[in-house]
Amino acid sequence: MGKKISRTDRIAIITKILVENPNKIFTLNYFSDILNYAKSTLSEDIDVIEDVFEKFELGEIKSLPGAAGGIYYNPKLTDNQIENICNELCTLINDKSRIIPGGYVYMNDIFYNPDILQKIAKSLATPYLEKKIDYVVTIETKGIPLAIMVAKILNIPMIVVRKSPRLTEGTTIQMNYLAGSSRRINTMALAKRSIPKGAKVLFIDDFMKAGGTAKGITDLMKEFEAEVVGIAVVMSTKTPKEKLINEYYSLLEFDGIDEKEEQINIYRKTK
Amino acid sequence: MGKKISRTDRIAIITKILVENPNKIFTLNYFSDILNYAKSTLSEDIDVIEDVFEKFELGEIKSLPGAAGGIYYNPKLTDNQIENICNELCTLINDKSRIIPGGYVYMNDIFYNPDILQKIAKSLATPYLEKKIDYVVTIETKGIPLAIMVAKILNIPMIVVRKSPRLTEGTTIQMNYLAGSSRRINTMALAKRSIPKGAKVLFIDDFMKAGGTAKGITDLMKEFEAEVVGIAVVMSTKTPKEKLINEYYSLLEFDGIDEKEEQINIYRKTK
Repeated sequence: MGKKISRTDRIAIITKILVENPNKIFTLNYFSDILNYAKSTLSEDIDVIEDVFEKFELGEIKSLPGAAGGIYYNPKLTDNQIENICNELCTLINDKSRIIPGGYVYMNDIFYNPDILQKIAKSLATPYLEKKIDYVVTIETKGIPLAIMVAKILNIPMIVVRKSPRLTEGTTIQMNYLAGSSRRINTMALAKRSIPKGAKVLFIDDFMKAGGTAKGITDLMKEFEAEVVGIAVVMSTKTPKEKLINEYYSLLEFDGIDEKEEQINIYRKTK
Repeated sequence: MGKKISRTDRIAIITKILVENPNKIFTLNYFSDILNYAKSTLSEDIDVIEDVFEKFELGEIKSLPGAAGGIYYNPKLTDNQIENICNELCTLINDKSRIIPGGYVYMNDIFYNPDILQKIAKSLATPYLEKKIDYVVTIETKGIPLAIMVAKILNIPMIVVRKSPRLTEGTTIQMNYLAGSSRRINTMALAKRSIPKGAKVLFIDDFMKAGGTAKGITDLMKEFEAEVVGIAVVMSTKTPKEKLINEYYSLLEFDGIDEKEEQINIYRKTK
């Protein structure tokens, strides 16, 4: 490059790199190397970005001091932003053309739409952004796109629990569990090398009824000597009120379908 | 807000919004509303961002003229950037601790790592960024995280073909196909309402052997009167050289494992 670039140029570059890699820490040395500027100047640039992100509620630019320090983008939403996303989701879901015979609601277009998923993922990740979490865990299939987006936001790897063991994944730990709502025995399986002992995980799923799957994941993690430190779902059912797990975070509450009135009962979940 | 903000502030905000939403078109009116500045001033801001992205090879800021026009971020990689990502991937994969009895290679840590996935997704999406594509299609399970990341980059929805029909997805079209490598008959199923007639789709998967799955997806799309306009995979096997489909884009070539030498033969795929 050689020639010095302007402050506006530096701000565009730094913003781009931080925003594309949420929760990834970049050192001032990193920016100093690519931009060929003193760290003191770059610190001032970062202060500008930090202030404007705060002012416009665009998430946070955070600085970690010290030798292992650096700067990162934390795509935290405000309570108000999460409220708006939940309202938008309720409107999207409460559409009678989604009703499928058998009392189901068609939602693939929501859970496979990356634009909507990003908003849901940010909403689900927000309470966990400052917590020490090593892995996002989900179970195949529908929760996977959401889980990888949450993992991207938290900048940690994802683990996918399978419903049956795979030859291609080597030695597997397999477990039976009771799906709370159907009282049916299901299987979950996970490659032994997927997760190290002592890992702290966040379980992400699209839907929770009785919490049998979340309970199963909690038990499976114990087999790996790992610990579930959070359970976050997009929707949970109003009944049963008592779930098989104690604490969980849910954006919306689902209270069944009124097939006669063609009404899908979906609301913002209150505490 | 009231008070005017500075050019550096505007550049940080515009860059943030564009980069977080690749291929989503924002009008000048949109920025004018949130920033309270004239469109002529904002045009100049965007020129600054455009120039510096080009100079530093950070992707492209593109403008569409006219009434339906606007600005978007195109996260296109250069050939050289794709080469570097492929080399990095080969080094990551060619690690003897990945060898699983039975001739398999453990890769979950790669395909479930959002940081690596983002690089792979950009590499796979690059040739398709300027094409008219309506959906990214994949088949459960391993390709899903990659497919949603490609869908995010292209700013289009994803469709997940299932290996068996689901009650919860309504009327389903089900099809048998021959998995090319094992000569086994498999099933694929897709909800009828997933995809409209005439849609153009890009099939994304982690791995291709004989191309039986890609051929199956192509046939399934015909049942929906949709069309596969691209097939992109991370790895394809060296043999069979002739695949069941004609054209595909593959980043890497896999030529088996030398179990005695504990060597995984993985290379950059050449044309």
